[in-house]
Amino acid sequence: MLLDKIETTCLSVDPFHTDFRKQLSLETLGVDLLNAAENHATHRGFGMHEANHTNYTWVLSRLAIELFTTPLVYDDYSISTWIESVYRLFTNRNFLIAGKDGKVFGYAKSVWATINYDTREPVDLHTMYGTGLDDYLLPDADCPISALTRVKPIPDEFIHSEMTVGYSDLDMNGHLNSMKYILHIKDLFPLDMYKSHRIRRMELSYMAEAYYGETLTFYVRSSDEMTHDIEIRRKKHDEMDKNNIVLRAKVFFE
Amino acid sequence: MLLDKIETTCLSVDPFHTDFRKQLSLETLGVDLLNAAENHATHRGFGMHEANHTNYTWVLSRLAIELFTTPLVYDDYSISTWIESVYRLFTNRNFLIAGKDGKVFGYAKSVWATINYDTREPVDLHTMYGTGLDDYLLPDADCPISALTRVKPIPDEFIHSEMTVGYSDLDMNGHLNSMKYILHIKDLFPLDMYKSHRIRRMELSYMAEAYYGETLTFYVRSSDEMTHDIEIRRKKHDEMDKNNIVLRAKVFFE
Repeated sequence: MLLDKIETTCLSVDPFHTDFRKQLSLETLGVDLLNAAENHATHRGFGMHEANHTNYTWVLSRLAIELFTTPLVYDDYSISTWIESVYRLFTNRNFLIAGKDGKVFGYAKSVWATINYDTREPVDLHTMYGTGLDDYLLPDADCPISALTRVKPIPDEFIHSEMTVGYSDLDMNGHLNSMKYILHIKDLFPLDMYKSHRIRRMELSYMAEAYYGETLTFYVRSSDEMTHDIEIRRKKHDEMDKNNIVLRAKVFFE
Repeated sequence: MLLDKIETTCLSVDPFHTDFRKQLSLETLGVDLLNAAENHATHRGFGMHEANHTNYTWVLSRLAIELFTTPLVYDDYSISTWIESVYRLFTNRNFLIAGKDGKVFGYAKSVWATINYDTREPVDLHTMYGTGLDDYLLPDADCPISALTRVKPIPDEFIHSEMTVGYSDLDMNGHLNSMKYILHIKDLFPLDMYKSHRIRRMELSYMAEAYYGETLTFYVRSSDEMTHDIEIRRKKHDEMDKNNIVLRAKVFFE
């Protein structure tokens, strides 16, 4: 049954989760997407809550959010999510962000893995869940936004700024909360940018986890005023340590 | 009717709004309290939404949150709110934060004013709302936590750290979001503090608004390891400008 495969969560934009233009904050929408994914998975028996009990957890590997228009304060919106495909170590999950009367605010695409909590290694999804994920596959549902792309490495000369990971940045696994990256990336751009533009699309590729007290360095390479590649690296690292790259991202303003 | 005077909002702790100990983040609870207040007011005809339409808005002047225990991830909790008293320029609003089966997580007390959006001056609440607020007064409902206290001025020698207000800190009025102060105050304390302690009570007194790009200086005076007074000031100010103090707060760990 089609509806069985889609989980829809209804929300509205509260006045404490908007920016100064009364537009829904992208990191709030990001958390909404994660919660929608969690609801979908939990109600079908493969949620993080269950996975945690057995020493495994879902981790978000990549995410693209694209908004044709951004919901405004007091707007009702809903998030529908479904599984597009399942591979050995990864599964693709899509999202529709809709308004009232058939309005489409946008879509999101994401890639997830399940890892062993102790070894941090990804596990075979079919070994882990059997046909649990495949039973809910919905490969043909529309998600008409561009696929996730690769951000190429950014040279050192594009260094922009630094931040230190604080207590409030941590999630319940003790790492920098995946949605806080959106907030820190937003703050790389001056307020004037947001007076006349908005973020239409953001892509995030999570490469390694960041911990309390670490200083992260941000690198920004701009193709033009509207298009920016971002790399976040650990400041203290050894040249040979590939894990020094924490995240790569792309931001598209319009 | 009693129930008419109380608005109850039901929530649960989602895994993306906890700290590394899986405890509900205090700034998330803060936003929940604001939303509960907004729901209470809107459903009774004196909400921010209506007030905005007529060029007025509610502003939070003071807030104390005290948690006997902190809700944990996946806990259900509810927030009930009511008006304790109404004066000429201020109204006192209380909150109960409850769990299942009669469990009480804690309480909160708050003080609000309505200001003219342009002049930023408070208005007479009876002129503004008539008997609108008094009709819902509930002076005798239990809210058994200490009253809000005054934080005494903190001398310059207690200077601690600085932050610059970024885009993501702003609320829809273009000021530093009132609940973001909680986040920045939490980050004044080292992670080790949170490994063995939790914030039992926080008090906030909002003195002036902070704007994009301003550098704020934090002053921390500790009575002991568990009890801290905090003052946040604008860095660039003229000696005679009383508005250089943005916020005073108290934090009680246990």
